[in-house]
Amino acid sequence: MTEVRTIALDVMGGDHGADVVLPAALRFLGKRSGFDLLLVGDREVIQVGLKKLGAAEHARLRIQHASQTVEMDELPSRALRFKKDSSMRVAIDMVKEGRAQACVSAGNTGALMATARFVLKTLPGIDRPAICTSLPSISGHTWMLDLGANIDSSPEHLFQFGLMGSVLARAVDGNPQPSVGLLNIGQEEMKGSDTLREAAALLSASPLNYIGFVEGDDVYSGKVDVVACDGFAGNISLKSTEGAAKLIYHFIRREFTRNIFTRIAGLVALPVLKAFKRQIDPRRYNGASLLGLRGSVIKSHGGADALAFSHAIEVAAVVVERNVPQLISSQLQAAIVERQAV
Amino acid sequence: MTEVRTIALDVMGGDHGADVVLPAALRFLGKRSGFDLLLVGDREVIQVGLKKLGAAEHARLRIQHASQTVEMDELPSRALRFKKDSSMRVAIDMVKEGRAQACVSAGNTGALMATARFVLKTLPGIDRPAICTSLPSISGHTWMLDLGANIDSSPEHLFQFGLMGSVLARAVDGNPQPSVGLLNIGQEEMKGSDTLREAAALLSASPLNYIGFVEGDDVYSGKVDVVACDGFAGNISLKSTEGAAKLIYHFIRREFTRNIFTRIAGLVALPVLKAFKRQIDPRRYNGASLLGLRGSVIKSHGGADALAFSHAIEVAAVVVERNVPQLISSQLQAAIVERQAV
Repeated sequence: MTEVRTIALDVMGGDHGADVVLPAALRFLGKRSGFDLLLVGDREVIQVGLKKLGAAEHARLRIQHASQTVEMDELPSRALRFKKDSSMRVAIDMVKEGRAQACVSAGNTGALMATARFVLKTLPGIDRPAICTSLPSISGHTWMLDLGANIDSSPEHLFQFGLMGSVLARAVDGNPQPSVGLLNIGQEEMKGSDTLREAAALLSASPLNYIGFVEGDDVYSGKVDVVACDGFAGNISLKSTEGAAKLIYHFIRREFTRNIFTRIAGLVALPVLKAFKRQIDPRRYNGASLLGLRGSVIKSHGGADALAFSHAIEVAAVVVERNVPQLISSQLQAAIVERQAV
Repeated sequence: MTEVRTIALDVMGGDHGADVVLPAALRFLGKRSGFDLLLVGDREVIQVGLKKLGAAEHARLRIQHASQTVEMDELPSRALRFKKDSSMRVAIDMVKEGRAQACVSAGNTGALMATARFVLKTLPGIDRPAICTSLPSISGHTWMLDLGANIDSSPEHLFQFGLMGSVLARAVDGNPQPSVGLLNIGQEEMKGSDTLREAAALLSASPLNYIGFVEGDDVYSGKVDVVACDGFAGNISLKSTEGAAKLIYHFIRREFTRNIFTRIAGLVALPVLKAFKRQIDPRRYNGASLLGLRGSVIKSHGGADALAFSHAIEVAAVVVERNVPQLISSQLQAAIVERQAV
């Protein structure tokens, strides 16, 4: 008999709140067994929302009332102090109390990170949590972290990011020795800052499969399984890519609507272009893990729709099934023991 | 009567040397009057190359012999010390001596920057040169700098980058008040490092049209005319975009070759896709300016083909015609005077 696990959802978070989270919850339950969902937020809003969706009673859904909502532009320090009964905070409390094995929120990243860190604490040996997600690559996907939790990072932090990414890649992809690269502006060993060179030394001396410096294009080239970087560089890389992808769609659309001939060509090409768009649909990559905490917290994009949010719940399910926090903790201890033995 | 100006070309630099630079030179001369070209490199290689192209004698081409070549992976300090007769160095010397008004090289970026800085010196008031290029955006293009000349930058450096980018945008685009943004990981004023916040204060207090922090996606969104950032962030942004664009082409190609039906769709869509590809062809954006020097130096991509290299020569021609170094110098003096007056 399989144990049923619970994932807590911050229903009020994100740009669309219950309008997105509730349909996403139902979509997830329709595809996945082994998990119940705990809907955290304003009880009335949730009940009305579920009724509209014809799911007023659902055996695998429970409600946990929370009276407040963290705003998308609220300062993390304010959220932490004055929003102790927010849907975000209560969802994380559920993980802390063992009433859920993971939580998912589309709320304000800074507040989510600060609250998760305050409530759950970091794993022993981890100084700072990091935000990690998988991005499409020519050979499959690449795990990248940190994507914005920390704006500057010491060599030790970058080493920890490499290790956490490696554990996630191993756990989720079943890849026994994921390759790890450090994001830099050149591949030569002398390139980059002192911090990067010291981080490279730590990674080289570790049992991780460290392959050296990688550049921005390697995130998508399939050359490496895990890209470690500080949150500033990670966020710039990710956002720049999003902007360029939007520009490319814009140009494709414009070319196909230029005149009657290109419109006809567009009709013929449409199914193929749709298949292509599905392939690199950012919604399929929604759901970033906050790694390094004593519990699993998944961040959804604030503007996610129901499909995208359901994908973030799926990420939470995988992280729970593979025991990612426990694996990070034990791998980190092993790396530390090995480093001390040298 | 128009004065004829000269652009010096580093014939031996880049991955392909004379094989690319010579056809690019002829292509440029075929399209452009008002400029002669000075081919700098091994005289025999150049003469043989020109003969092959049927251009052994050309009224607008001269040769300046240089006996050495800077390797693509050579340390800048070594190039500076031991390659005083390299094609790169001599091309820059030509600018210094007033025998050319600009030079173009596809050689090693670090060596080019170090040599240009050593030979030409920075403009008064400029601490560090920056690499600047235009990138396609939804509404036209965006100027971005620094793209890798400096790995860390002080608030004052970032201010100077914003000013130099603004001057370039005004000179090349005829835009009277280009908007300037600082690359950050959020638009809120409290986001980012102390350095970025101090740079924001300097830009806000200046006569520049500073619009605040922008994010990675804004490089391509058309929201801002000039994006200022340190060279690490700029390089990560640019390379990440290149990687993502390659991935997107890969997926499009794969979808259109999946089976007989998609291949037929691909044939119909081909002209449209080609027009689209031309639009965002990185070769059309080849040619980055090294700004802040007492002379004009243009860096071509190392792997550029003849079309791309000829575009870099075109960038040099525009920079010369618009007197960019002189404009930067006078605008900078004006900004400094205004700052002291406050």
